[in-house]
Amino acid sequence: MERTRVGIIGATGMVGQNYLRLLDDHPWFQVTHVAASSRSAGRPYADAVAGRWVMDHPIPELVGHLIVDDVNDLETAMRRCDVVFSCIGADEQAVRELEEGYAAAGLPVISNNSAHRHTGDVPMLTPEVNPHHTAIIPSQRKNRGWGAGCIVVKPNCSVQTYLPPVYALMAAGHAVENIVVSTLQAVSGGGYPGVAALNMLDNVIPFIPGEEEKTEREPLKILGSIKAGQFVYEESLRISAHCNRVPVIDGHTACVSLKFRSGRPSLDEIIVIWNTFEAEPQRISLPSAPHPPIVYREERDRPQPRQDRDAGGGMAISVGRLRECPVMDVRFVALSHNTVRGAAGGAILSAELLKAQGYIE
Amino acid sequence: MERTRVGIIGATGMVGQNYLRLLDDHPWFQVTHVAASSRSAGRPYADAVAGRWVMDHPIPELVGHLIVDDVNDLETAMRRCDVVFSCIGADEQAVRELEEGYAAAGLPVISNNSAHRHTGDVPMLTPEVNPHHTAIIPSQRKNRGWGAGCIVVKPNCSVQTYLPPVYALMAAGHAVENIVVSTLQAVSGGGYPGVAALNMLDNVIPFIPGEEEKTEREPLKILGSIKAGQFVYEESLRISAHCNRVPVIDGHTACVSLKFRSGRPSLDEIIVIWNTFEAEPQRISLPSAPHPPIVYREERDRPQPRQDRDAGGGMAISVGRLRECPVMDVRFVALSHNTVRGAAGGAILSAELLKAQGYIE
Amino acid sequence: MERTRVGIIGATGMVGQNYLRLLDDHPWFQVTHVAASSRSAGRPYADAVAGRWVMDHPIPELVGHLIVDDVNDLETAMRRCDVVFSCIGADEQAVRELEEGYAAAGLPVISNNSAHRHTGDVPMLTPEVNPHHTAIIPSQRKNRGWGAGCIVVKPNCSVQTYLPPVYALMAAGHAVENIVVSTLQAVSGGGYPGVAALNMLDNVIPFIPGEEEKTEREPLKILGSIKAGQFVYEESLRISAHCNRVPVIDGHTACVSLKFRSGRPSLDEIIVIWNTFEAEPQRISLPSAPHPPIVYREERDRPQPRQDRDAGGGMAISVGRLRECPVMDVRFVALSHNTVRGAAGGAILSAELLKAQGYIE
Amino acid sequence: MERTRVGIIGATGMVGQNYLRLLDDHPWFQVTHVAASSRSAGRPYADAVAGRWVMDHPIPELVGHLIVDDVNDLETAMRRCDVVFSCIGADEQAVRELEEGYAAAGLPVISNNSAHRHTGDVPMLTPEVNPHHTAIIPSQRKNRGWGAGCIVVKPNCSVQTYLPPVYALMAAGHAVENIVVSTLQAVSGGGYPGVAALNMLDNVIPFIPGEEEKTEREPLKILGSIKAGQFVYEESLRISAHCNRVPVIDGHTACVSLKFRSGRPSLDEIIVIWNTFEAEPQRISLPSAPHPPIVYREERDRPQPRQDRDAGGGMAISVGRLRECPVMDVRFVALSHNTVRGAAGGAILSAELLKAQGYIE
Repeated sequence: MERTRVGIIGATGMVGQNYLRLLDDHPWFQVTHVAASSRSAGRPYADAVAGRWVMDHPIPELVGHLIVDDVNDLETAMRRCDVVFSCIGADEQAVRELEEGYAAAGLPVISNNSAHRHTGDVPMLTPEVNPHHTAIIPSQRKNRGWGAGCIVVKPNCSVQTYLPPVYALMAAGHAVENIVVSTLQAVSGGGYPGVAALNMLDNVIPFIPGEEEKTEREPLKILGSIKAGQFVYEESLRISAHCNRVPVIDGHTACVSLKFRSGRPSLDEIIVIWNTFEAEPQRISLPSAPHPPIVYREERDRPQPRQDRDAGGGMAISVGRLRECPVMDVRFVALSHNTVRGAAGGAILSAELLKAQGYIE
Repeated sequence: MERTRVGIIGATGMVGQNYLRLLDDHPWFQVTHVAASSRSAGRPYADAVAGRWVMDHPIPELVGHLIVDDVNDLETAMRRCDVVFSCIGADEQAVRELEEGYAAAGLPVISNNSAHRHTGDVPMLTPEVNPHHTAIIPSQRKNRGWGAGCIVVKPNCSVQTYLPPVYALMAAGHAVENIVVSTLQAVSGGGYPGVAALNMLDNVIPFIPGEEEKTEREPLKILGSIKAGQFVYEESLRISAHCNRVPVIDGHTACVSLKFRSGRPSLDEIIVIWNTFEAEPQRISLPSAPHPPIVYREERDRPQPRQDRDAGGGMAISVGRLRECPVMDVRFVALSHNTVRGAAGGAILSAELLKAQGYIE
Repeated sequence: MERTRVGIIGATGMVGQNYLRLLDDHPWFQVTHVAASSRSAGRPYADAVAGRWVMDHPIPELVGHLIVDDVNDLETAMRRCDVVFSCIGADEQAVRELEEGYAAAGLPVISNNSAHRHTGDVPMLTPEVNPHHTAIIPSQRKNRGWGAGCIVVKPNCSVQTYLPPVYALMAAGHAVENIVVSTLQAVSGGGYPGVAALNMLDNVIPFIPGEEEKTEREPLKILGSIKAGQFVYEESLRISAHCNRVPVIDGHTACVSLKFRSGRPSLDEIIVIWNTFEAEPQRISLPSAPHPPIVYREERDRPQPRQDRDAGGGMAISVGRLRECPVMDVRFVALSHNTVRGAAGGAILSAELLKAQGYIE
Repeated sequence: MERTRVGIIGATGMVGQNYLRLLDDHPWFQVTHVAASSRSAGRPYADAVAGRWVMDHPIPELVGHLIVDDVNDLETAMRRCDVVFSCIGADEQAVRELEEGYAAAGLPVISNNSAHRHTGDVPMLTPEVNPHHTAIIPSQRKNRGWGAGCIVVKPNCSVQTYLPPVYALMAAGHAVENIVVSTLQAVSGGGYPGVAALNMLDNVIPFIPGEEEKTEREPLKILGSIKAGQFVYEESLRISAHCNRVPVIDGHTACVSLKFRSGRPSLDEIIVIWNTFEAEPQRISLPSAPHPPIVYREERDRPQPRQDRDAGGGMAISVGRLRECPVMDVRFVALSHNTVRGAAGGAILSAELLKAQGYIE
């Protein structure tokens, strides 16, 4: 099989670097195009990113030689690749227009950006939860007059940490009414340079701008349905999020208390549900799909970021400490790798799903 | 006024060191006796603690010259001091008997240990919340045949962080039904050596042995009442605690969501309640009482451990981020210094209360 | 005595904040003027610095109400204060001109900036080492046609850590020929926001731009002499510096190996020299002078940043681990507080010296 | 080829865990035996190490089922394996006797322990530096009456960081006279639990017991020669080491200044020497040999622990910042992974060398 040619729009930032690292030797995709702001354009990628490459792995050699293009140069992008991952840093309006430009030019866009997350005909994908939401793409294309182009987005990294295990319970027939979640989020979630060391050594910051709103609202779309070419949110679920920044490099931890709508499964039943959970990405064996997608840790003090963030190549969700909640019904701890599952890796999995479903050539 | 002579039982441990630091130049108390296990006994305190003194301040000079006594040598203790602070590390049964021995010998015992926290006639004091609980002391003395001796304990450090602001609301007439609290606790809470650096760099540990049970149960006694010489717990309040260890030296942070029993005050009313809260320690001007006891921070990203743990000399509770909770009623962040307010400092404030009330000479 | 009115030029940055903290309640100086870039000008200081105040202490109340002026508004500065501390962030040429403007306007300038450190008639002061270098001020004023104005600078923070103990040996008659020093420097030395948390958690950075050159060159001027109104550097001493950034908030540590010019004192003699060292600031009792200026720690694992940075109110140098060096003569570890002794505190001590010597009214 | 059966003596400790991780799927060796103190003996390895497994990777499945034996049970060891890696924690005398017991029983012992490092007929191997030192094994066996058994040791982890690049210069004909080295060592070097988080957050510790002596003395044996069946140390080289513990998980950094015996290569020549350095492990393609063994980083701020410790699978030495030294001749920064190259990985490479040379079956 010939690999699909992909471009990274915003390739010099931290998420862009993660894409390049994760797509190195990908069986379905090959990076043939890197784009960034005009400042970086025209130089080999390795030069453009010199002093700003923050991955613990070296720059993939072939990518290092690619000449960086300007993100606004759509014609070059059209020539060089067939699909783009968008992780450009800019204000929401600019991102929205830029991504729509790429889609109009015939390029499917998989975006890390929050700009289009609540656009009515744009699916926000967590492939284990709502793979069927891609069904909106034909009407998205039709309404907007796009050919092969389209836009899909991934949710915020904090959502990936706790939503899949909650969804596994829902999928097993246990509707959830309320969630109170406190997150302990890694500094890599804030991009680079992000949080200052002066604020993060011997400290926690109990606030991340915009994060609680995203953590509370995005799941309602992911769990929602499609009506007349638009997403209808699942408003019967209420979520309360406390988001904290902690001195951890990678790996968001979430302390979750939840209440079921009626009745509730036993703790043993829940563990069985998680241990046997499997979804579309596993069933159709997408290259980046973790097996299993949810790992339940029996140890009393797990999951922990350093030990569990790399589970399933950074794509699995680790869960532990399931116990009864004196106030709600049950509670547990969940953890995922925020820059893999929660960012570039999650978007790559979505792209694989689109390709398997035929939305990407 | 002549100062009361105090002894520290368990003086070489980290909490013991904190007592010595905080009692240096105390207007009411003077450390005249330090006791530890037989290993340390017989040596000047400075020698006994060499290589294990972990305070950022030097050993108070007079204390450094005190000869350490064996904690089991009650006779020396009786000669050298009039009240003892107990922070000896041992199993619960041993601690219980040791503390009862001191009390029987006529020495009031203020304890950091959890051994007697749920003993029916022993008050667990947070002086801003339940100063009236000392009223049980006369019957404690009578029932047990103790003269001047008695036992009072302080609650777990995690409780100090969030209970006073919750109590302030209750005291203003707003009964609370449910609390979901996630704590981000400092490593000093685990004593010395405590958590290994290998487990704490670039990591969080979502489990602290016994901590959640204490965080959930102890407030019910503190908020309880005395009936027939025994404490009756306030069972109408339910608390769910998620306790996490984070890479912070000092200062426990708590993310609190709470539900009122009926109706609820507005956010503005709550801030006024906190800003004007004053309790017995403030009213009778105990030397260690913080003024104000609760500090509301208006900044959107406060309180934070490094910036707020020393508020009120480490004795004030800092609160911030009050907002509506989509699941319960309101939510906020609270923070206190776990080794000052949450340990030695809280116990010293209790001792001051006992002295002001005449239970200590 | 009426206090001298002082202005802080660059008051909103991290060093500026340190000045305000350290000058709160200063017996000789009173902050009456705060200046910053035009962005901050016109607003109360507390507003201008909102969200950027990184001290662990609150903003001094009186200062919080001062209206921030533009650093280029010399007329206001002349009206509002009699001496200025300069810690403005800008390129060297701009700083040089700005500081000369203040001096020409009759205001003595004590600067943290490196711009004038190697200007021939500007003294670079470490008051315990070269208090006599202020003798150049009359010729500086005369040559430049300045009246009451003048410029003095403080050296780089890394220099303060190891130079005073080395100088103490020199002052006792033991000339030093070579120094190899490796520094482990705190993140606060890089200003705010400075180093990213992503680069500093679970990491060290073995490079700080420009730091090794400063560490090697500045001592030669401080140890130099005045000839014909210009400083002559002490070129017989050679220094090799390895500068590292480590995950420490405050406190630079230096590992020093040194070789004497001829012969060498015994280790015991060196400790006596350090323990009895006293210099001009101590002799004339400047308010910020630490007593003693050098603290020798006998423990085998000291000095350490957390335990020793606050020695002498952050103004003393802590030294320890003196031992023979198999390659050079002796070696030891030195530590000082980089944002107190090494920055604002050191400059305030210099200003006190200038006032005691009559160069400041 | 059938794999050699290996045993891990001290398998439950942190170094033992590293062996198990690194030997998982090793082409030449298969772990068939795990031994520990009597406390752990008799239980499956996974049980014995529960709560103490600190690797970021899970326990290799086959090993998890092995029953842990008592380290003193030589007969079982002889039955179960053909060579042992020793990393038992005990006092030096006990380790010495235990290792001699295994060797006498016919089992080659490759040891991480320091007990036999200065035994006259025991080679201390860094395979890139002194592979020829194994030539002492026949006389070791003969003198001690051992058959197939023998003892070889690896040096301290701090030595691995800076010795290979220095040796590369020596091997190219540039004799070195003096070295001043300051190390910034990771906490994993202290074993588990090792340094307390309370001592390591916002701090450095400028002392590691015994480390400087090892860092200064061990290279002299490694660079020495064999005379009459005993090692003669290279006494013409003098090393001065300053060893510091820093808040880094893995990866020791070393700041090195060195002086050549006569003349000196240019900086460019040195870089060429490093970039082209190749030694016996590379020439005979040992499975764990890094290619290249020394990686020179051109960036001005490298090597850094997080980015460079995993170079060459954790077996390569990263070097950078080569520049002239104002006091000695040249200086640079070196870095290696202390628990891979500096501990288990280095010992496995030595075992591979022994097998390639025929000393292990």
